[in-house]
Amino acid sequence: MKEKKGELQQKSAEELAKELRQVSVSAFFERNRHLLGYDNPSKALLTVVKELVDNLIDACEDARILPEGIVTIKTLTETRFLITVEDNGPGIVKENLPSVFCSLLYGSKFGKNKQSRGLQGIGASGAVLYSQLTTGKAVKVWSKTAKDKKMHFYEMFIDVHKNQAEVKKEETLDTTKAHGVKVELEIEARYQKGKQGVDEYLRQTSITNPHLQLSYVNPDNEKIIFKRASNNLPKEPKAIKPHPHGTELGVLMRMLKETKSRNLQSFLTTDFCRIGGGTAKEIITKALLNINDKPQNLMHDQVEKLYKSMQEAKVIAPPTDCLSPIGENDFLKSVQTEIKAEFYTSITRSPTVYRGYPFQIDCALAYGGELNPEESIKVMRFANRVPLLYQQSACATTEAIKETNWRAYGLQQSSGNLPIGPVVLAVHIASVWVPFTSEAKEAIAHYPEIVKEIKLAVQECGRRLGVYIRKNVKAKEQREKVSLFEKYIPELADALSSLSGEKKSIIIECLQKVLKKGLKDLLAEAKESEKEEIKGSIALGEKQQTLE
Amino acid sequence: MKEKKGELQQKSAEELAKELRQVSVSAFFERNRHLLGYDNPSKALLTVVKELVDNLIDACEDARILPEGIVTIKTLTETRFLITVEDNGPGIVKENLPSVFCSLLYGSKFGKNKQSRGLQGIGASGAVLYSQLTTGKAVKVWSKTAKDKKMHFYEMFIDVHKNQAEVKKEETLDTTKAHGVKVELEIEARYQKGKQGVDEYLRQTSITNPHLQLSYVNPDNEKIIFKRASNNLPKEPKAIKPHPHGTELGVLMRMLKETKSRNLQSFLTTDFCRIGGGTAKEIITKALLNINDKPQNLMHDQVEKLYKSMQEAKVIAPPTDCLSPIGENDFLKSVQTEIKAEFYTSITRSPTVYRGYPFQIDCALAYGGELNPEESIKVMRFANRVPLLYQQSACATTEAIKETNWRAYGLQQSSGNLPIGPVVLAVHIASVWVPFTSEAKEAIAHYPEIVKEIKLAVQECGRRLGVYIRKNVKAKEQREKVSLFEKYIPELADALSSLSGEKKSIIIECLQKVLKKGLKDLLAEAKESEKEEIKGSIALGEKQQTLE
Repeated sequence: MKEKKGELQQKSAEELAKELRQVSVSAFFERNRHLLGYDNPSKALLTVVKELVDNLIDACEDARILPEGIVTIKTLTETRFLITVEDNGPGIVKENLPSVFCSLLYGSKFGKNKQSRGLQGIGASGAVLYSQLTTGKAVKVWSKTAKDKKMHFYEMFIDVHKNQAEVKKEETLDTTKAHGVKVELEIEARYQKGKQGVDEYLRQTSITNPHLQLSYVNPDNEKIIFKRASNNLPKEPKAIKPHPHGTELGVLMRMLKETKSRNLQSFLTTDFCRIGGGTAKEIITKALLNINDKPQNLMHDQVEKLYKSMQEAKVIAPPTDCLSPIGENDFLKSVQTEIKAEFYTSITRSPTVYRGYPFQIDCALAYGGELNPEESIKVMRFANRVPLLYQQSACATTEAIKETNWRAYGLQQSSGNLPIGPVVLAVHIASVWVPFTSEAKEAIAHYPEIVKEIKLAVQECGRRLGVYIRKNVKAKEQREKVSLFEKYIPELADALSSLSGEKKSIIIECLQKVLKKGLKDLLAEAKESEKEEIKGSIALGEKQQTLE
Repeated sequence: MKEKKGELQQKSAEELAKELRQVSVSAFFERNRHLLGYDNPSKALLTVVKELVDNLIDACEDARILPEGIVTIKTLTETRFLITVEDNGPGIVKENLPSVFCSLLYGSKFGKNKQSRGLQGIGASGAVLYSQLTTGKAVKVWSKTAKDKKMHFYEMFIDVHKNQAEVKKEETLDTTKAHGVKVELEIEARYQKGKQGVDEYLRQTSITNPHLQLSYVNPDNEKIIFKRASNNLPKEPKAIKPHPHGTELGVLMRMLKETKSRNLQSFLTTDFCRIGGGTAKEIITKALLNINDKPQNLMHDQVEKLYKSMQEAKVIAPPTDCLSPIGENDFLKSVQTEIKAEFYTSITRSPTVYRGYPFQIDCALAYGGELNPEESIKVMRFANRVPLLYQQSACATTEAIKETNWRAYGLQQSSGNLPIGPVVLAVHIASVWVPFTSEAKEAIAHYPEIVKEIKLAVQECGRRLGVYIRKNVKAKEQREKVSLFEKYIPELADALSSLSGEKKSIIIECLQKVLKKGLKDLLAEAKESEKEEIKGSIALGEKQQTLE
């Protein structure tokens, strides 16, 4: 190797070693805050509110309490806001308050295979991190866990080096409040209305969470109430055990090491879902192992054989009763409450499975009314009841809608694009593990199974819309044409009279007779279409009855 | 609040608290491995090799050693590979070996504002994590730090709960090797050739790292040598102190708390770049503070005032001598070595700044030869000398190229698309902080300052290409036309002779005279164009001289 001597002053491994150090996860995300959704000031405002509201609803649902929230965004300066989110949830016990808000990756949901909004324990502490980075202010938290207990107050920072709370102030207070948490954060941000703003986020949240009652004061000091549309809490989602076909070799090894089961037979039947005694025996025998082998004692090549045998075994798909979809009726009601239209329909598909994880699609459609007929349809995307406002074009939902032929359902569409028409289409995926394309949870990955299910849901809503458009919209258009024609009868008669020499009054009489006959036919047709009621769909006139 | 009693069995905060726990960063990335580039088997193979090779070059450069690497990918089964990467770097001291390979977020580069390939200390340990997850095998590492020292060997796993190494085997060995590290990993993956494969990645790496000598055995057992094209190590990049305009309030607060400076004056001049004594005084006075105030004693509102005053102060841009671009000559040489074409040119722009971070663009262009003239031009993207193979359409580089008008330079282009032509365009950004759009470091974010600089570099190369195409390509095309015409002279003369009655031989003579005159003019034009040499550009004939 040629080296110009003198130019290369080599450094030793010992010298370089001095610079090595462990970085905390807080420091990592502080530097890479865009990965958590804090790329720009407008998105930052949305992300902070989103994380706190997601937590509010999760906390209430976990405790089986109907959620009631108060969100206030106070404008301090044009670029600085004070955000307060208060709930009626179960509260957080004093000992855990510092970690919940000031340690990243601290939470209760991680790796649980249970449908929920939060997953990683990053949301709330990420918001606190952003707050102290941009304003240097501490987070304030009030928590009360029961009527007969005191309220605890904390003012604290995140110690970024340690990924731990640095408590500034701690108090015990008396209040009349029953239970719940209140969080206050000051951040640098920008307030925007429109499609990707906080107002829209909360509106969409109330659509997919009909059991939520929310009072919201926006930065313009306008108070908006999102009313509870249903008094039923969603079915409690269940955590499921890992499915043998969705488990990786490295995870299997760890499970074998950490299991409390004393033998392989009980390990397979207890630590996985869908493995019964017979299947377990079959798997173990095929791997040339013994049902009484101790899980901790397997050698590496034995584990590999067990893994292979597990993958080859016929095991039915994981249970799907662990999911909590929104449900046809609730989704329909919510969409009706929030969107003024003339026709509504909704569908909830049966659950199905991708890569060992169960999932389920809800879809709701609103048509006509105040919606703009000249623009692309409006798509609302939700995952485990959380609205997704960014990265629409990267989302599996958008792909499924674009690939559907909407001309068959009476809308305009150029191929490969969203259709044009006065339509809002809302799509929800419920899953124990939603495959997001990034940490900021903005779009769903294009798994073929998921795209297919969304398509089937969207197509069913589209078919119902097609029937409605043919029967009602076309009939209405004809009626409008008739009444327009009626207006012109006198003038037409005038002209015809002078051309033909026939008396004007006779001509008018004839024309009106013709028109009446036409109208009769049209009305009969409309009546028939009303009889042909479509399950799950509601046109404006029927709305009242169905709502109560 | 209406509640159906009995249906809601509320859970207490105490019950829910039992489920709270801290998750390690290893567990987080194990579950979210797609965030590190392990979304699918083909990409996984690339990512593992990329992380290990990036580390190899970084280690050698840090120690000022000309890097020499051996990469071997051995096919075990269709979906399983054994990857070995060996370097001649400084080695890693025994005590640090476990953490370097088995703790995520352990490294020497984090938050340093110094140009390097690695940043977070996630790369190597992320690869180990993926290996043990998919094959359950331990990583093997050999390290030697000097000729007179022993070689250390470790076989270890990552303890995912603790984000720490779990050592399985530890040995001390005698070898003749001088110094360096060797890593061996077994992974589940898929081998693909083509644009996004390992072969292409290494080829591109050798283009932007002309000082690298690399021997590569691919899964098909083909040995490929990427030869060193330059014996000069790149200039050593320097770490720069934070720039006052690129520092956030929360970071300023932490710096005040942790500084060793005893007063504000010395804090500002020592802990930041570009603040001299005068500017410091001005900033402090404007914030109504005293130059002798102890940094640790400032109250929150005082810090806010100091921050505001720092932002308003006129401070020159950060120094740019901390960057190490590839350089016009080296980039040109490397592109020539790897791409067979007929015309080459390259340019290195002056450094500039975005958001307080210095950056600099290199650009090289190859034209003609074996390149396909019917397809879109081929774009190669690099950041701190690392090839970026995924997410091309999301990258600032692609945007800049599409927005350039290539028709002016003699290529076809429909607006908003990449141009068509036999061109390879290589763009490199060097920066102390490259703004990637995601953790997997695949695309550069669209900062206007960066897009503008790339455009200027690309346009300069484009202009030179335009000159070359006009002078040479057009002349060559004409010469070809002439020689084609020459072939047809006898037949043409035949026809003319029978039409006009003139002797065939006379006609041939005349035609050849005309043709000769035309050729003379063309050759004169070609000669003139050779004189008009374009700085930094090389056509095929001149290549030899310029290379030595």
